[in-house]
Amino acid sequence: MENEGSYIALGLKVWKTQIDRADKLFVSLSSEDVLREIAYGRNRLLYLWGHLTATHDAMLPLLGLRERLHPEFDVAFVSNPDKSQAAIPSHEQVRQAWKNVNAELWKGFEKMSWSDWLQRHSAVSEEDFAKDASRNRFAILLSRTNHLSYHLGQAVLGLK
Amino acid sequence: MENEGSYIALGLKVWKTQIDRADKLFVSLSSEDVLREIAYGRNRLLYLWGHLTATHDAMLPLLGLRERLHPEFDVAFVSNPDKSQAAIPSHEQVRQAWKNVNAELWKGFEKMSWSDWLQRHSAVSEEDFAKDASRNRFAILLSRTNHLSYHLGQAVLGLK
Repeated sequence: MENEGSYIALGLKVWKTQIDRADKLFVSLSSEDVLREIAYGRNRLLYLWGHLTATHDAMLPLLGLRERLHPEFDVAFVSNPDKSQAAIPSHEQVRQAWKNVNAELWKGFEKMSWSDWLQRHSAVSEEDFAKDASRNRFAILLSRTNHLSYHLGQAVLGLK
Repeated sequence: MENEGSYIALGLKVWKTQIDRADKLFVSLSSEDVLREIAYGRNRLLYLWGHLTATHDAMLPLLGLRERLHPEFDVAFVSNPDKSQAAIPSHEQVRQAWKNVNAELWKGFEKMSWSDWLQRHSAVSEEDFAKDASRNRFAILLSRTNHLSYHLGQAVLGLK
């Protein structure tokens, strides 16, 4: 049990490290900066930031913590490419949602016991989970941390 | 012990997933392709590939598995920026090294027991490890997986 706690603590530490890097990067941007593309013709920083926010928001129900805070972000930042929607959430709305979603996630993480992390996540059925117990909440934490790193590698290219 | 094995299995699964993505991306490139920059004025694909290879190579001693296979990669791909060296390893040398280093790592991972993963990695002293047991080999696995994801996010931008 002591060891089990240490694997989860490590997973959370790596998550926190990447969130801190993202905070530092995104929060420093002006409303003009966020409209910059990461490379010619590619996604804008605001799109990446909104995409990460929506992905993290979706983790709330996936981990059984609560309903989503911003399901409306998906149309703008997940199911459609950048620059395809007439109206998307503003810089200020994304900034606030990013902050709230990650705070809510962290609050949930702190309440989870080590055995909670090995439970199935909500997108896998009980039947499928019985066949493959690796489809658990800890797997979501690890994969979403990597998803964050992936887009962070892109976002740094958009900095001046 | 059963649960402990499942955290490690998850960590290894996420590593393997990212390695497979990288394999698919890099191995498809021609010798002309690898010289393409990921964005105007940024690193070339060959540099990212060599950088990931060197980083993974350094994991071998860090995890106590064996000495490095390609310490000479550091000058070209770690300690100096892209396009600063007169001569760097060729496309074929990087391709071969990437394959060998990752195969050697996987061979090592398969021999490690769950308790090995919680041992200190070789860059931390026994004294420092006594103060902070999170500086272990599992932490290296998680952080290097995120490092790989970070640069994969960049490498995809260099694809046609």
